[in-house]
Amino acid sequence: MTELGVVYRNIQRADRAATDKLAAFGSATVHEAMGRVGLMKPYMRPIYSGAQVSGTAVTVLLHPGDNWMMHVVAEQIKPGDVVVAAITAECTDGYFGDLLATSFQARGARALIIDAGVRDVKTLTEMGFPVWSKCISSKGTIKATIGSVNIPVVCAGALVNPGDAVVADDDGVVVVPREWVEKTLAAAAAREANEGEKREKLASGVLGLDMYKMREPLAKAGLKYID
Amino acid sequence: MTELGVVYRNIQRADRAATDKLAAFGSATVHEAMGRVGLMKPYMRPIYSGAQVSGTAVTVLLHPGDNWMMHVVAEQIKPGDVVVAAITAECTDGYFGDLLATSFQARGARALIIDAGVRDVKTLTEMGFPVWSKCISSKGTIKATIGSVNIPVVCAGALVNPGDAVVADDDGVVVVPREWVEKTLAAAAAREANEGEKREKLASGVLGLDMYKMREPLAKAGLKYID
Amino acid sequence: MTELGVVYRNIQRADRAATDKLAAFGSATVHEAMGRVGLMKPYMRPIYSGAQVSGTAVTVLLHPGDNWMMHVVAEQIKPGDVVVAAITAECTDGYFGDLLATSFQARGARALIIDAGVRDVKTLTEMGFPVWSKCISSKGTIKATIGSVNIPVVCAGALVNPGDAVVADDDGVVVVPREWVEKTLAAAAAREANEGEKREKLASGVLGLDMYKMREPLAKAGLKYID
Amino acid sequence: MTELGVVYRNIQRADRAATDKLAAFGSATVHEAMGRVGLMKPYMRPIYSGAQVSGTAVTVLLHPGDNWMMHVVAEQIKPGDVVVAAITAECTDGYFGDLLATSFQARGARALIIDAGVRDVKTLTEMGFPVWSKCISSKGTIKATIGSVNIPVVCAGALVNPGDAVVADDDGVVVVPREWVEKTLAAAAAREANEGEKREKLASGVLGLDMYKMREPLAKAGLKYID
Amino acid sequence: MTELGVVYRNIQRADRAATDKLAAFGSATVHEAMGRVGLMKPYMRPIYSGAQVSGTAVTVLLHPGDNWMMHVVAEQIKPGDVVVAAITAECTDGYFGDLLATSFQARGARALIIDAGVRDVKTLTEMGFPVWSKCISSKGTIKATIGSVNIPVVCAGALVNPGDAVVADDDGVVVVPREWVEKTLAAAAAREANEGEKREKLASGVLGLDMYKMREPLAKAGLKYID
Amino acid sequence: MTELGVVYRNIQRADRAATDKLAAFGSATVHEAMGRVGLMKPYMRPIYSGAQVSGTAVTVLLHPGDNWMMHVVAEQIKPGDVVVAAITAECTDGYFGDLLATSFQARGARALIIDAGVRDVKTLTEMGFPVWSKCISSKGTIKATIGSVNIPVVCAGALVNPGDAVVADDDGVVVVPREWVEKTLAAAAAREANEGEKREKLASGVLGLDMYKMREPLAKAGLKYID
Repeated sequence: MTELGVVYRNIQRADRAATDKLAAFGSATVHEAMGRVGLMKPYMRPIYSGAQVSGTAVTVLLHPGDNWMMHVVAEQIKPGDVVVAAITAECTDGYFGDLLATSFQARGARALIIDAGVRDVKTLTEMGFPVWSKCISSKGTIKATIGSVNIPVVCAGALVNPGDAVVADDDGVVVVPREWVEKTLAAAAAREANEGEKREKLASGVLGLDMYKMREPLAKAGLKYID
Repeated sequence: MTELGVVYRNIQRADRAATDKLAAFGSATVHEAMGRVGLMKPYMRPIYSGAQVSGTAVTVLLHPGDNWMMHVVAEQIKPGDVVVAAITAECTDGYFGDLLATSFQARGARALIIDAGVRDVKTLTEMGFPVWSKCISSKGTIKATIGSVNIPVVCAGALVNPGDAVVADDDGVVVVPREWVEKTLAAAAAREANEGEKREKLASGVLGLDMYKMREPLAKAGLKYID
Repeated sequence: MTELGVVYRNIQRADRAATDKLAAFGSATVHEAMGRVGLMKPYMRPIYSGAQVSGTAVTVLLHPGDNWMMHVVAEQIKPGDVVVAAITAECTDGYFGDLLATSFQARGARALIIDAGVRDVKTLTEMGFPVWSKCISSKGTIKATIGSVNIPVVCAGALVNPGDAVVADDDGVVVVPREWVEKTLAAAAAREANEGEKREKLASGVLGLDMYKMREPLAKAGLKYID
Repeated sequence: MTELGVVYRNIQRADRAATDKLAAFGSATVHEAMGRVGLMKPYMRPIYSGAQVSGTAVTVLLHPGDNWMMHVVAEQIKPGDVVVAAITAECTDGYFGDLLATSFQARGARALIIDAGVRDVKTLTEMGFPVWSKCISSKGTIKATIGSVNIPVVCAGALVNPGDAVVADDDGVVVVPREWVEKTLAAAAAREANEGEKREKLASGVLGLDMYKMREPLAKAGLKYID
Repeated sequence: MTELGVVYRNIQRADRAATDKLAAFGSATVHEAMGRVGLMKPYMRPIYSGAQVSGTAVTVLLHPGDNWMMHVVAEQIKPGDVVVAAITAECTDGYFGDLLATSFQARGARALIIDAGVRDVKTLTEMGFPVWSKCISSKGTIKATIGSVNIPVVCAGALVNPGDAVVADDDGVVVVPREWVEKTLAAAAAREANEGEKREKLASGVLGLDMYKMREPLAKAGLKYID
Repeated sequence: MTELGVVYRNIQRADRAATDKLAAFGSATVHEAMGRVGLMKPYMRPIYSGAQVSGTAVTVLLHPGDNWMMHVVAEQIKPGDVVVAAITAECTDGYFGDLLATSFQARGARALIIDAGVRDVKTLTEMGFPVWSKCISSKGTIKATIGSVNIPVVCAGALVNPGDAVVADDDGVVVVPREWVEKTLAAAAAREANEGEKREKLASGVLGLDMYKMREPLAKAGLKYID
């Protein structure tokens, strides 16, 4: 649960090497490797396609229509971080634009994940600073109320603790708890190990029905074929 | 973050007496007393109006279209509990009907909070078993995949730890962390202490502008009156 | 698929006696009895709570913002029918009010199911003419373009053939194909036969876990209890 | 278009007698009488059913999550007014509760129309102070930024000028421009004049097809009957 | 209406040559040629822009969160087919990824139309396998419950019978009943025949008002010009 | 408020030179320069990315499913105009395609802003005619009911008077009242004047906290740092 008005400066980040390797597997494989949990809502979409990142979460909790804490969180960014921004109520305002992106990028942030709106998306795309957001909006915000930095937050339906790993790509955004990163990485790697072989078989026309030996369980479940 | 396939039998519940007293204050006052956090999304609506409850959360995480764990969580209910049900992905199916409600009620549950659908709402209303849900749906569910009971869950955008207090009424659903219950109760009581006096003043025609001494700060903020 | 500009006068209606008996079981039980198909989307809501009807469908396909065919379908209503109205594209306009309801009721219609808006809901409630709709709207419609009556339509995601049975209550709306009505009625009755006994057991504190013998399959599925 | 930070004290209100008579006709008839314009989006719903009001609009423009101007608008209310509240961006927060309602009611307001959330709905219902809103939410708001009072606003998709008439009931909310009130009242009355006769005919089984002489135009439009 | 647990192996497909020619006309022209019916809801969007396909439908009905039948339908695909996947209730899970796409492509499928989510969209784009879906989601599915293949389904609000033609492009997805394909093709061709001429005229500055001779009917309808 | 059936031929357009210069600043900066008002809802999205336009509004009010007035508004377009189309109720139909775009472009229109659907988006993209719309849909419309041209309209939540300036880009659509164009341009220019300097500082690692001197007000607001 959230405390307001607090900035935690020292957080324990997930293992850097393991976190960095998660990006290549992508959010779908990582999500499977974790047992199908940790996914943000599918309304979270990238502002441009093709970006595929993983990083350690620094979190920020903001109020509707107020982006003051974005400047506070900027100071807490370390290279390899991904900023995860949650709002205390639903909001579509554009909390983040090219100036903040310049600052975040200078501090070493790899991406922003925000359960609200973002703007200057054309410039952000040119800068190569990826954002996953609920929407895009020109609507600006004020700087009147404080929130918190590096507390646990719920972002787009997923719990994010500071230091957790975040994996984001065109399929969505997945959160991997800090202590799960290594085993998730191993599970993801194991999952992909024989994907090449499977893909070749399927490409040659072999059916999943046969490759996965599904015909018997389907018949047992009562599936009937009618000519 | 969630583990799957685990049932925690012993959870530490928020103080019973303090939790029980929260209902009378209602979700709006409790939410204010906590500093405006802990609120579930406003799409969570009661199946009938007028119910006003507080209780200690037992949590359950289910899969889309699968209500098997509802029977598992029933066993963990103690009198005074409120069951909080989260789903691993968005789903509108009717996970809960009159038979489960009979069981939950027999175990001492006061309400169900579910980020999905519910059915048999006419019977539930007659039974006086309140449910706050995302929707109402006749759609039944299967019993094929296990989830977990009494782990932290994200329900309708709010983090709920087992044993937290939950307050629900016609205005919505608020979660109070277990360790915050006493101080939240005190803050809610303080908040309401002079509400009667305020209400009387306002009813007599005194303006909030004067009662809260807002004229000066409004003028400072630049507000202009034009005749 | 739809033909436009056609009114089928002679349709084969589902068995009257069997159709009439479906109402008492309610949409959730009927939906289960059919194998969990035939349900309209849960956005379809009654304009007042407590109505519980079943009847034979006369269908009408209308265009966005145009309710001309409502008058055409009125003539095709026979006592015991339920009018099912679909629109060729999404629309929230109020296609139906108290005058049309007076006409429908005079013809013997039991209800209207419409994938659009309705108005005069206060008067409809007083008249006791139930409507399940996508929304409520004062917005009126024109009479410019013809549609069809008694052709197969897709209403709120469900296929409805003229003469099918429709069951609607506070939980939603279910469509039973004409040839399935008798077997669905039998399955619904069988389903309810031992519900009373189950309810008593659950009310006495017996758990579904034991009543349904779920402990073993849950353990097999890997469920673990932690004290 | 909107100016910020301005309160217009003197507005020209629609004719009181004519405005007051609009309520009895209801939003659907008034909307028809105006030529099917002026309707707010159908997501605007009353917090309790049965209320039917008309009044003169005092308008207020607020910022997301900030209800400061609600206190400013209270002072501008005169008996017979309806407060119309618009927000500069989408917001679901609960801007209004029982204290403000007490103040509004004391000043003579008949209702609140707000394109955002409201709370304390149980108490508001007991007080008999009707609200039409986008949603219900316990979420409180801050008092940090000024907006304006009695400027033209867009509320739920409808333009509202201060002094316009507003008609609201279970079917929705319609705005009648100040200069149109008398002619709209006349048109609404004309519209209802022969409704009783029509209703009787339809109740006796006469079809709209015949009463409105639609058979010929339908045939011309190409409608075909198939036996 | 749907039977569950059945796979129809022999379906009658729409005429191949006619079906293949529909793609070039696009979904908007085909939809007009059919009399403005058969359109799926506009929430169905392509995962990448520019794809324009037509093909014969093989249909599959799945349960929420369960993609088992995707492997069953793969076996029924013939070259030139488009797979149309419907779900028995609303679901946003990612039912389909690069392995299934490899299999579908190897069997000769041209596209997938699914009223749910899809994942691995980056790889699918690289493979050139187009998908029209409700959303994109990393969320995986289970394989526990059987559905049906090649029965009539309702997908995104449109009825699809196995063997119908499907036309999909950047504008959306249209279903052409099997028996209508030839006449729809002819109507689409007739519609486009003089489009080039029209376009030239409009490009030269001729107004639609004059080209379509609308001035007189508009005046008759009461349109007034004010200088 | 709207009159129906009227076309205003002579409207006063915002200053051409000032209006044309707004495009370069983009919708976010212009929105800020105006004091954060005048923004259309963020559901308005461009059919292709990268377009950035400003122009003077000619407005049109249409009925659901009826695009007749699109031909009427075409005649009123002057070079440098942007057509703003509003609908009297929510509608997702495709009101506009390549033929109308050819006509609009020939008349000198720079873009279409429409609170409904559009089609032929592939061709529109090739033509370089940008459209901001609520959705994309193949669904065609009829030509049966007249609306109005060059009256004030509410489009996607924003009031647009004929002759106002409109600024649209990847971030959204902003409306600048005709009399505000020059001062808004000046304010936008002032806003951007020192953006380059700020960007350089932030890029070099200077924090917004220091650049904007936020540390003191944050501390005053109660922000606490915890190591």
